[in-house]
Amino acid sequence: MQDGDPFPGKFITLEGGDGSGKSTQARMLGDYLTGQSIKNLLTREPGGAPGADEIRELILTGEPDRWDAVAETLLFYASRRNHLRLTVWPALKKGYWVLSDRFADSTMAYQGYGNQLGEDVVRKVHDFAVGDFEPDLTFIFDMPAEEGLRRTDDRLHNEDRFEKMDIAFHERLRDGFLDIAEKNKDRCVVIDATKPIDTIQAELRRVIRERLLA
Amino acid sequence: MQDGDPFPGKFITLEGGDGSGKSTQARMLGDYLTGQSIKNLLTREPGGAPGADEIRELILTGEPDRWDAVAETLLFYASRRNHLRLTVWPALKKGYWVLSDRFADSTMAYQGYGNQLGEDVVRKVHDFAVGDFEPDLTFIFDMPAEEGLRRTDDRLHNEDRFEKMDIAFHERLRDGFLDIAEKNKDRCVVIDATKPIDTIQAELRRVIRERLLA
Repeated sequence: MQDGDPFPGKFITLEGGDGSGKSTQARMLGDYLTGQSIKNLLTREPGGAPGADEIRELILTGEPDRWDAVAETLLFYASRRNHLRLTVWPALKKGYWVLSDRFADSTMAYQGYGNQLGEDVVRKVHDFAVGDFEPDLTFIFDMPAEEGLRRTDDRLHNEDRFEKMDIAFHERLRDGFLDIAEKNKDRCVVIDATKPIDTIQAELRRVIRERLLA
Repeated sequence: MQDGDPFPGKFITLEGGDGSGKSTQARMLGDYLTGQSIKNLLTREPGGAPGADEIRELILTGEPDRWDAVAETLLFYASRRNHLRLTVWPALKKGYWVLSDRFADSTMAYQGYGNQLGEDVVRKVHDFAVGDFEPDLTFIFDMPAEEGLRRTDDRLHNEDRFEKMDIAFHERLRDGFLDIAEKNKDRCVVIDATKPIDTIQAELRRVIRERLLA
């Protein structure tokens, strides 16, 4: 978890708004890694460990106003800590590649930018919960806010608190993800999520080959 | 919630280890305030609002090692934020005096000192979740660690994760509460919890008369 003491496995995160196709792409990447004889674990946030899954239920269900952005941030990070300690770090130690559908950039984008808590304060909670640990590679799935809203409107959701928010929120969210990518160029690659599924998957595999398998 | 913009009500917290008698004393104080025609609300942490009570269940039940001290701190503060926003602040705005059985000093003492996360890092999470808001008065119930352990051994508990810890932990906890009291003399009064119940209650009432009713 410290610089100079890397895990044998690689940690890859997929980030972006709902409806951006990242969950489908994560599954396809897992198949690719398996085909390359790389043992891998597909996980997601919030959740990804038994305690974290219980926090997920708390966050995503119930009245829309029961958590404010501050409480949400604390719950997301409690869940993340549990996910890291009991799922991600043990798998990385064993040499697994871990693919996570959402990680810390989502909290920064949704609560820090979308809900306007601000980058600096969310960063303090991040440092407390996660320390220096970060993904080896992050794909940021980008699409126009209207397109993301349209795609999620077509779905049925029980866990839909975060998708009922307005277009201005989704614009801030998109700008937030792009700002995170710009500030973390070594780690982040922006993906045009409006392209066809197979085109995107080919792009993800190319980046992985160049950055992590070269 | 800002200096210079006080609530009409008063916020009094009761802090200390388990078995220190603070819950009984809080109830007796509520009776006293009611007798003085002061409308009051008795609450407790973790919990004190519907969402916070669900987090309480997560924290206090389950396997002893499912949360580490970092995740616990985040969960306690998510619960606290919910408790403040939906219970404590609205009551104080209406002029109620709020008596809380535990508040932020417990997280500092248990996780910061007892679990040795350190004062500075817990303070950062505190500032994120609570800001400048603080109690008007805090009673710190103090007793030797062995005495607190003996008293809690006599009880039946379902929610007993925090009471199974060892004596060294309880010594750090006691020292932590006393350190907090020393550093916050304007707000904190240390109470000898080994004294008889009625003696303690008379002391609490005397302090309230002198500090908040004078």
